[in-house]
Amino acid sequence: MSKAKRQMHLNLFLIPAGHHEGAWRHPNTDVSQLMDFDYFLRLAQKAEDAKFDSLFMADRYSVSKKAVAYNGMLGLEPLTLLSALAVATNRIGLIATVSTSFNEPFNVARRFASIDHLSKGRAGWNIITSGTDVEAQNFNFDEIPEHAERYERAKEFVDVTTGLWDSWEDDALVLDQHEGIYADSSKVHELNHRGQHFSVRGPLNVPRSPQGRPVLVQAGSSEDGRHFAAHVAEAIFTAQQTLSDAQAFYSDVKARAAQYGRNPEQVKILPGICPIIGETESIAKEKEANLHELANPHYSLLQLSNRIGFDLTSYPLDGPLPDLPVSEQTRGHQSRTRLITDLAQRENLTLRQLLLRLAGGRGHRTIAGTVKQVTDELEAWFTEGAADGFNIMPQLMNDGLDEFIDLVVPELRRRGLFRKEYAGSTLRDHYELPYPANSFVKAPQSQRAVR
Amino acid sequence: MSKAKRQMHLNLFLIPAGHHEGAWRHPNTDVSQLMDFDYFLRLAQKAEDAKFDSLFMADRYSVSKKAVAYNGMLGLEPLTLLSALAVATNRIGLIATVSTSFNEPFNVARRFASIDHLSKGRAGWNIITSGTDVEAQNFNFDEIPEHAERYERAKEFVDVTTGLWDSWEDDALVLDQHEGIYADSSKVHELNHRGQHFSVRGPLNVPRSPQGRPVLVQAGSSEDGRHFAAHVAEAIFTAQQTLSDAQAFYSDVKARAAQYGRNPEQVKILPGICPIIGETESIAKEKEANLHELANPHYSLLQLSNRIGFDLTSYPLDGPLPDLPVSEQTRGHQSRTRLITDLAQRENLTLRQLLLRLAGGRGHRTIAGTVKQVTDELEAWFTEGAADGFNIMPQLMNDGLDEFIDLVVPELRRRGLFRKEYAGSTLRDHYELPYPANSFVKAPQSQRAVR
Repeated sequence: MSKAKRQMHLNLFLIPAGHHEGAWRHPNTDVSQLMDFDYFLRLAQKAEDAKFDSLFMADRYSVSKKAVAYNGMLGLEPLTLLSALAVATNRIGLIATVSTSFNEPFNVARRFASIDHLSKGRAGWNIITSGTDVEAQNFNFDEIPEHAERYERAKEFVDVTTGLWDSWEDDALVLDQHEGIYADSSKVHELNHRGQHFSVRGPLNVPRSPQGRPVLVQAGSSEDGRHFAAHVAEAIFTAQQTLSDAQAFYSDVKARAAQYGRNPEQVKILPGICPIIGETESIAKEKEANLHELANPHYSLLQLSNRIGFDLTSYPLDGPLPDLPVSEQTRGHQSRTRLITDLAQRENLTLRQLLLRLAGGRGHRTIAGTVKQVTDELEAWFTEGAADGFNIMPQLMNDGLDEFIDLVVPELRRRGLFRKEYAGSTLRDHYELPYPANSFVKAPQSQRAVR
Repeated sequence: MSKAKRQMHLNLFLIPAGHHEGAWRHPNTDVSQLMDFDYFLRLAQKAEDAKFDSLFMADRYSVSKKAVAYNGMLGLEPLTLLSALAVATNRIGLIATVSTSFNEPFNVARRFASIDHLSKGRAGWNIITSGTDVEAQNFNFDEIPEHAERYERAKEFVDVTTGLWDSWEDDALVLDQHEGIYADSSKVHELNHRGQHFSVRGPLNVPRSPQGRPVLVQAGSSEDGRHFAAHVAEAIFTAQQTLSDAQAFYSDVKARAAQYGRNPEQVKILPGICPIIGETESIAKEKEANLHELANPHYSLLQLSNRIGFDLTSYPLDGPLPDLPVSEQTRGHQSRTRLITDLAQRENLTLRQLLLRLAGGRGHRTIAGTVKQVTDELEAWFTEGAADGFNIMPQLMNDGLDEFIDLVVPELRRRGLFRKEYAGSTLRDHYELPYPANSFVKAPQSQRAVR
């Protein structure tokens, strides 16, 4: 059998109205639907029919009283919605964001194992450390713990979680009704973890799930973040504005993964892309301009301030982005802040112009153009060492997703870049990731077929 | 309109194979299904078709390596399964257990509000404090905090959670697309809670949910537990072995609720009942004996030891229940322990006999008899001041639930004790509970119609 052509991975980044800050105000958006399951179900089924690898939900642990005047981006808690979508879909992966700073590993291991069972092997965890004081203030802190400490906790958190997923060997469940043997106790393990942040005895109270371990996803781009991602992540979401930046990130993370003894092919790098599609480039640009009209600069400024950890609300909109001080809060957002300051400098943008550049994707790359232009750029990033696939961020959730799927996906297929059918049934299958070895099993698992 | 006859509330207590310890070994149990959504969906739909008020899932935060040899009672994490059932059912309430000792109020408030949105007003939270060292050891403790301290934390936890649910007023969402007003900030409130156990700023990042607040359920029967339940619970699950004990509990909790200024009718008391139905009483007793045959005394002894917080595994099965010492662990289970020691003394049971009396319902009342006998007893408890309804605990999940619904429910209806149709669409409607006032709203809400 000849080696199949390398295939792109596509993830749908779910968000209520769309990724553009003005999406909720667009006349095609029915705001009465944005908390409804049926609304998300249609999106999920559209993506599944198109053979997307996965659905993804980001998460924040706070909302600002000021910002909700203009826009909420409010929605259901990710694992709640994805648990429901798990039983209403059949093949598409389900990736939820959960913070290691405001949760306990036993609960997180259990919830993801439960969704992995419920979905028959389609769960993924996007690991975040959360970086804002306003979130920390909902969890007994006055300020967010410092960056390095959050990553230390995250590392230990993931160690404990994967240990708990391993605490049941694959064949520990016996279920012999006649003899009354439920499980083979010798294949069920206490973890007895005692670390700096956690003491967890185990075993987990959920048997090993279909994927062995749900897929680990990460999005950190700072030095600590890359180090962590290259160590543990099987897929990485990232914000990149230019091909050359994306290439540098891609090769850096792949090289780090190799340094840590991992197979770089088992770390999928998926930059976020905000596609805006028009019959001509100018129609696409006009669509973008129309969305920009619906964005509120007061809201945008609150969002940017929150994103970079520095209050910009007293700066004139038609002046430049000021020099940003370095503080614990800004360090918490260092990579996104660098991307944003680089963008403002490179294109010599006023604050108002910068806000519009960020309104569609919060720093992710917007491609506004024809089907050919969008497809060309995805192909270039994919074939020129910048991406293993993309995190698709429709500007308007309904129309934008439909346009991408109805117009760009067929063109990607025509070029042989994206699957026509699912080859397997789990998220690991879609991402071409191996079934994980169990840390409690001494013998080599070389006989075990990679699923 | 004449006043309708008082109606019984019925809750289905979901558990994988059935409530009897031997259920998983029964030939009618397909053990391969016990982690499958479709299995639970059938049960949920059966209960919904029968117009049950609610589904309920208990929870424990550990499993013992020793005990899983004989029986797991393992399953999906409750909120995960109930999130999925929320979108696959239409009317039945969904009550999940979550511990206040191993979670954070912001996360819990958010998850229940999300399920309340997803289910359009059918969520309920069974508040537990968790009482075992083995659970605490999965959450960084060496031992479980002492009983009174757990209840202190629980009380503050519930205060914060209800405050977060209230942080969005009913009409805070404006969603004016034309003017770009998403919410009325003056109706979105920071909580700024600073207490002994929690500091939580708020607001919650989920708008007020259909029920205003999900229904609060509790099951504590100790002095601290009754105090707490009478203060906050809108429904109470309880284990009672005799009519007179159940009457004493019922009148005590209702009186306490009245003392605390609450309307006792808004505290529904639902004892657990394990029905075993036969064409004759002796056929029912034989069914029970057959299930007892499938229970393993080693497992039963581990379960009982865990339940009362004292290791009984070295005591002879054919001797009496020994005197139990008082320790922090046993205090953590004081009411159930008292019920069990009372039962052993009243009926002069050996340890082996006691284990069988507990194998079906862990201390909840078993009624093995004809349809008439079971119905008579439910009617007596309901009409003689012992219950507002029942938490139904089928011994075999499939057969036992079907028998109860197909045989006892019609007889309850014939006697005018149980609804033929749902009168409303939310769990508050089913339990005849008022829509809660919002603590942030100063003006009296007397105009607001009770839903």
